[in-house]
Order: sequence, then C-alpha cells, then structure tokens
Amino acid sequence: MAEKDTRELSVQGVKRLPYYLKYLKELEASNTPYVPAAAIADSLGIYEVQVRKDLAAVSSQPGKPRVGFCVHGLIEDIQHFLGYDNANVAVLVGAGHLGQALLSYGEFAHYGLKIAAAFDNNPDLQGSSIHGCPVYGMDMLPIVCQQNNIPIGIITTPAQYAQDVCDQLVAAGCKAIWNFAHVHLYVPEGTLVQNEDMAVSFALLSNRLAKTMRTGPEEA
Amino acid sequence: MAEKDTRELSVQGVKRLPYYLKYLKELEASNTPYVPAAAIADSLGIYEVQVRKDLAAVSSQPGKPRVGFCVHGLIEDIQHFLGYDNANVAVLVGAGHLGQALLSYGEFAHYGLKIAAAFDNNPDLQGSSIHGCPVYGMDMLPIVCQQNNIPIGIITTPAQYAQDVCDQLVAAGCKAIWNFAHVHLYVPEGTLVQNEDMAVSFALLSNRLAKTMRTGPEEA
Repeated sequence: MAEKDTRELSVQGVKRLPYYLKYLKELEASNTPYVPAAAIADSLGIYEVQVRKDLAAVSSQPGKPRVGFCVHGLIEDIQHFLGYDNANVAVLVGAGHLGQALLSYGEFAHYGLKIAAAFDNNPDLQGSSIHGCPVYGMDMLPIVCQQNNIPIGIITTPAQYAQDVCDQLVAAGCKAIWNFAHVHLYVPEGTLVQNEDMAVSFALLSNRLAKTMRTGPEEA
Repeated sequence: MAEKDTRELSVQGVKRLPYYLKYLKELEASNTPYVPAAAIADSLGIYEVQVRKDLAAVSSQPGKPRVGFCVHGLIEDIQHFLGYDNANVAVLVGAGHLGQALLSYGEFAHYGLKIAAAFDNNPDLQGSSIHGCPVYGMDMLPIVCQQNNIPIGIITTPAQYAQDVCDQLVAAGCKAIWNFAHVHLYVPEGTLVQNEDMAVSFALLSNRLAKTMRTGPEEA
C-alpha cells in the first residue's frame, strides 16, 4: 500500500473517490482482477485523463499495459486515502426522519462508518433500536462516547438544539462533527466540522438553475 | 435591485449566502433596518473582509458609514442572486425516511422552494399527505409534472431505481435534478444534476479526519 501526498487531490477529486470505490467493488465481486482506466471512465462518465490523475494521486500502482489497474490494490489504496481503514465509529444525536434516514443508509457500512449509538430526548424512542442501532436518552451521551472513545458526532437535531449538542459531543471527546442542522456551530480549535445543510445545497442548485435560465446551459 | 455578474462569487461564497440570509431575516423580524458588516461577520464567524467581498458580489448597495447595510435591500439582492424570486417548485420521488425528512424540512419555505407533490411506489403511502404534500403513485408523475410545468425533480429513492426515475422526470420536463441516491445519473445536455450523496460527504469528512490524525489540526 503506497502513501501519496494527499494535498494533490482537490475536493472534487475526493468526492469522485466513493464512485470509483463502488465501481471497483462491483468488479471485485464479479472476480474481475484488472480494469483499464478507459473502462472506469466510461462507466462513471468521467474523462479518462481525469481518472488517471485522480488514481495517481491516491495510489502509486502503475497500470499494466493492455490489462490496466489491479482492482484489489486500487480498492485498498482508495480506502486508505479516505481513512476507511481507521475505525470510523460515530454516534448520532436526533433520531427523527433525517437521523433515521442516516441510520438506515446501507452504504455507510461499505465506507467504513459504523454508527454505534443514537441519542434522542423523545422518551418513546429511548431503549429502542433503529436498524440495529440502540437509542439512548441524552444523559447517556457522555458515558457512551467516553467509554468507547468515539471520534465522530453526527448532529441531526433541529437547529436550535445543535450548538448545545455540539458542545456535549466535543466535551465527550469527539474530534469531528458532521452537522446536518442549519446553523453555524462554534467549536474549539482542532475540532473538525463538516456541514451538510439542505438549505445551502438547495441554494447552490437554485443559483445554477437561475443562471441557466438567464444565460443557457452550463458548460460541461 | 441591482444585478451583478454572478461569476464573481465562488461556490464557497454561494454556500455562505443562506447563512447571511437567515441572519438578515432574523434582524428584519426584530425591526433592525441596518447592519454593519462587522456585526454580520461576528455573528457568523466569518472574517469581515470576506463578508464585504461576498456582499459586493451579489449587491451593489453601498454600506452607509456608521450604520452599515440596509437589511431589507440585502435580503432582496441575495434572494434574487440565488434565484429564490423565481418559482422554485419541485416534485420528490421516494417518500421513505430521507424523502420525509426533506418534506418536513421547514427551512425550505424560507428559501423559495415548494415541494408540490411526492411520488412513491408504496401503495400504503399513495393518497396520503406528508407534511401537507400529497403522495401519488408513479403513474401520476408525467401528468402532475407536465400540467404544473415543474422545473425541479428531487430523487430520494434507493440507488437502483434512480436512473429510471431520473429519465421519467426529464421526460416530464424537469430542468434540474437534485439527486440524493448514491449513483451517477446520465441526463441529456442542458439538464442540471446536483448530487447530494451521503457516502460522498462522509468520504470528505473521513479523509479530513484521517489527515488530521496524521498531521495535526487543519489550518483555518
């Protein structure tokens, strides 16, 4: 497994990696040992030169003439680059529709994420299990996180509770916050926050659509 | 309302606009007519110079010395920039947990998005209403979309159905697809696709966390 300088790959490049990984795992499942860059490009609708650039940034495997890249080796290198071979264990706070959507999202297991526990202040949910994940009251959060050394906290609460929940997760030792609430979170230096804000995503889409209406289709 | 060249603002800048908008609407609701850039910066944890740059890209309002920007004028300019003053009507296909989370997401109304109808192949859901949105069978999709000239289709189905659903939405006249399924969609030239892929988002977070573990905290 060869380690490359991670700064070579753009955010857009990192975003393409899970698609490569999905495709490569399908190939591996069908006992295909090698794949040419052109086949990856065709299958995912990405230019071949882009595929070669992305793969060179995460793997120092040389493609073999005529047969292409070793599927298993590429899978290992991409997983390592994405940190999937570390233990990505998370807890989730807020087991409403969005929380349950994440708990039921089957793909996470393929990407090295395990949601070990969920927390909610709804007593009807406490003590239950959602898609195999136990749901506890908020009072259990510090104990569960500290005992299991949980690195990632996922916030799917309404916006008005998110900062308080974030403070509790950080105090319980979480190093990264995955925030689905529509609010800016304040965290201590050294704590990562990644925002997944539906309103922000919709703003991007709406802005692109408005531009297209004014000036015609986007350039590819 | 002054129109500026939209190419001046980066994607990161567009992503900040909904936060400005939320803050400005709170000010307007509390009858605050003017706001200095420094107050916006403080409230959202963004550098003042960045705030001034973002606002200059979407509005040609000059800030007044001492009092700052006109709150109402900024709201109008940001909404116009984001296309929220166009009719952003959408349909949603797939009324499972994620679909229901989107239907129950109260913020969308503030951002000019109305989800007019949902479609699902589960007969138990057909004929019901989720957070005020009617749910129909898939056979109604062409009729509802074409009669109402729906520009946006939201896909929250499992991945294996997403391309077929996408084809149906495009055939029914949708100009933009907001795709929450973990699959690459093929669309005709001129159709926008915006992907919101939880696995891709998690890949970004996992990669950042892995880098932090290797090399220490990210730079601000």
